Amino acid sequence: MSDHDEFLKVATAAKEAAAELAPLPRAPKDAALRTIADALVARSAEIVAANAGDVARARESGTSEAMIDRLTLDEGRIAAIADAVRKVADLPDPVGEVVRGSTLPNGLELRQIRVPLGVVGIIYEGRPNVTVDAAALCLKSGNAALLRGSSSAYASNVALVGVMQDALADAGVPAGAVQLVPGQTRESVKLLMRARGLVDVLIPRGGASLIKSVVEESTVPVIETGLGVCHVYVDADADLGMAVDILLNSKTQRVSVCNAAETLLVHADVAEAFLPLALKALADAGVTVHGDERVAAYGAQVVPATEDDYYAEYLSLDIAARVVDSLEDAVAHIRTYGSGHTESIVTRSQPAARRFVALVDSAAVGVNASTRFTDGGEFGFGAEIGISTQKLHARGPMGLPELTSTKWVFTGEGHLRGV
Amino acid sequence: MSDHDEFLKVATAAKEAAAELAPLPRAPKDAALRTIADALVARSAEIVAANAGDVARARESGTSEAMIDRLTLDEGRIAAIADAVRKVADLPDPVGEVVRGSTLPNGLELRQIRVPLGVVGIIYEGRPNVTVDAAALCLKSGNAALLRGSSSAYASNVALVGVMQDALADAGVPAGAVQLVPGQTRESVKLLMRARGLVDVLIPRGGASLIKSVVEESTVPVIETGLGVCHVYVDADADLGMAVDILLNSKTQRVSVCNAAETLLVHADVAEAFLPLALKALADAGVTVHGDERVAAYGAQVVPATEDDYYAEYLSLDIAARVVDSLEDAVAHIRTYGSGHTESIVTRSQPAARRFVALVDSAAVGVNASTRFTDGGEFGFGAEIGISTQKLHARGPMGLPELTSTKWVFTGEGHLRGV
Repeated sequence: MSDHDEFLKVATAAKEAAAELAPLPRAPKDAALRTIADALVARSAEIVAANAGDVARARESGTSEAMIDRLTLDEGRIAAIADAVRKVADLPDPVGEVVRGSTLPNGLELRQIRVPLGVVGIIYEGRPNVTVDAAALCLKSGNAALLRGSSSAYASNVALVGVMQDALADAGVPAGAVQLVPGQTRESVKLLMRARGLVDVLIPRGGASLIKSVVEESTVPVIETGLGVCHVYVDADADLGMAVDILLNSKTQRVSVCNAAETLLVHADVAEAFLPLALKALADAGVTVHGDERVAAYGAQVVPATEDDYYAEYLSLDIAARVVDSLEDAVAHIRTYGSGHTESIVTRSQPAARRFVALVDSAAVGVNASTRFTDGGEFGFGAEIGISTQKLHARGPMGLPELTSTKWVFTGEGHLRGV
Repeated sequence: MSDHDEFLKVATAAKEAAAELAPLPRAPKDAALRTIADALVARSAEIVAANAGDVARARESGTSEAMIDRLTLDEGRIAAIADAVRKVADLPDPVGEVVRGSTLPNGLELRQIRVPLGVVGIIYEGRPNVTVDAAALCLKSGNAALLRGSSSAYASNVALVGVMQDALADAGVPAGAVQLVPGQTRESVKLLMRARGLVDVLIPRGGASLIKSVVEESTVPVIETGLGVCHVYVDADADLGMAVDILLNSKTQRVSVCNAAETLLVHADVAEAFLPLALKALADAGVTVHGDERVAAYGAQVVPATEDDYYAEYLSLDIAARVVDSLEDAVAHIRTYGSGHTESIVTRSQPAARRFVALVDSAAVGVNASTRFTDGGEFGFGAEIGISTQKLHARGPMGLPELTSTKWVFTGEGHLRGV
């Protein structure tokens, strides 16, 4: 079979499975998730063996140890993945929720009900645990998952999907509900992006270039995720001690994530009081500051910032920094250079907080809190499929309801339209 | 200036206006809408004069009288358009609604707030009233409107947008909030479709080929609207008199609209009792039936149906018809040939109604009611920007809330993330 035929076969099977999954109530979906969790643990030796092949190939091709660690599965990690699946089973089912409803003046009963999206395509890099996480979230929300992971984890993903499909069949749920896109070439990604009519939504999870190419090339509707050029703005009325703590937490608590801060903006009125404290704290934490001249005036170790620094998603112990003359200038900087993910203001001023929240056009805005809180787990969603930085359908952390659409149901007794 | 430069100028102005509109409360937006309504009436002579040019050009180029009627504006029609704007002003403002909110275990206060989408691009055909309707709905929901109407109505649209921009400026609202895409060529549509970063969402309103080309070519997120291949399914347990009434209302109450029925599916068990009644009623109403052999058995005047008939959005006094052996076969037909708009079942059986609602994957499902009810006005939304047949963001009739996104706001007192 050609790549195209193989892809069509798999995507069609996913679409058929999605139609069977959609009307299922919660119980059989949860039972299937628990069967998957048990099967992952029971067959972990088999998964580890497949993973060992991926790890050996990665090592041969000179992959960094950090990346190899991300790729590696062992029994402990598989047990943790299985536990995460059980936690998804414990979450409420978003499907069937009545979002709105009313009885119209003519007696027609109207309800808007949550339904699955259908087939969710996910393109991702790195860790093979995403294969199971994404499949579990899709299954719980009644969707079929069409997964396209990193080619470096292909053997691991084949093993994981095989175990999940067997478990689904054992649980009496269509095994086609979890599918791996066949093939490891770039062509298979293209087929997925062009599968309008078979795939209902595409969620790219990964680096900026992956997301950009999916957004530009896909005819399937895309939910853009992840790029985070997050800002901490220290207002004229900030509690400076709090500002240092929030800055450090936002930047250094975990540097490799999309909700870590990448740029510090400081109101000119507090630059002299704040920047010496901040620069020392950042230096002590091993952070390199890329600042403008007004920042550099307070620390010899400040590296001159270029335009690129303000656009940068460092994901490292680096931060861009700039002094601004007003809250409005901070907002203008964020609108120009930000990615619309998360920006936090530190201020004791209620009007300033209100104005910042109103003017900043991002998925999440924090007041006197670390940017690191923009997260499905922290927001209490119980699970997260990604963080949307677009405005359509879902914005910010996406939990189970964000993996659903709705359907209008109107019930009458022979109702006809008059005009 | 090149087309591209002119487009960029207009789109950038819309984006800047959107940033100013977003934080506006309801009062200034409503005041601006009422100023627009008054100005349209006050300057109707000027609008009628511009429109007369479009009408004359349309007549010269041999446009049908029906199309010319759609294009023509007079003082009465302009007054009606102005009234519709006043009605939009009377609707509640979706912006600022707290969609969800909670205080997290750590005391962080979390709110999800409705915010405007930003710049809404609308590509549409036909009537110039859409220019004002769409602008009013965008303005009310805090969005800037970037309008690309039919080139046949270009002079009318220039006049209408000019009047609206002047009214906005008079009301102290950024005049850039309502913009017409410059130029009448296909190139200007392409520029709009590629304006990712300047335009937040594109809503095509028009025929199937327009929508298809926008969906396939746009890099801006699109909300697919309008195509309606709607079905009436007469179940084995239907009240046959009710079924005839619903069929006739769905097909003939207004034939040119997307929620009109285009295909009749009849359960085999009632074909003999129902089809003679239905075929007579359809014939009396002047409807041509394109049926399969099992339908043709009950009426000499039935035209043999081809595969294309089942895919057809006739928008005319034509209907496709087919006998099916089960509810499941009806659902399978709808999944194969339908457009995911609206399907109605006529049945006295509660289990059949429940099963049909669960299995049909469309924006709206009716039970014992005409397909014609899928409409923002009928659903009580007060206004409608279109009917979405996609699953992402909005599905079914789109009112003001569907023209919004959300923003997460989290407020703490120095909250840091621990793990």
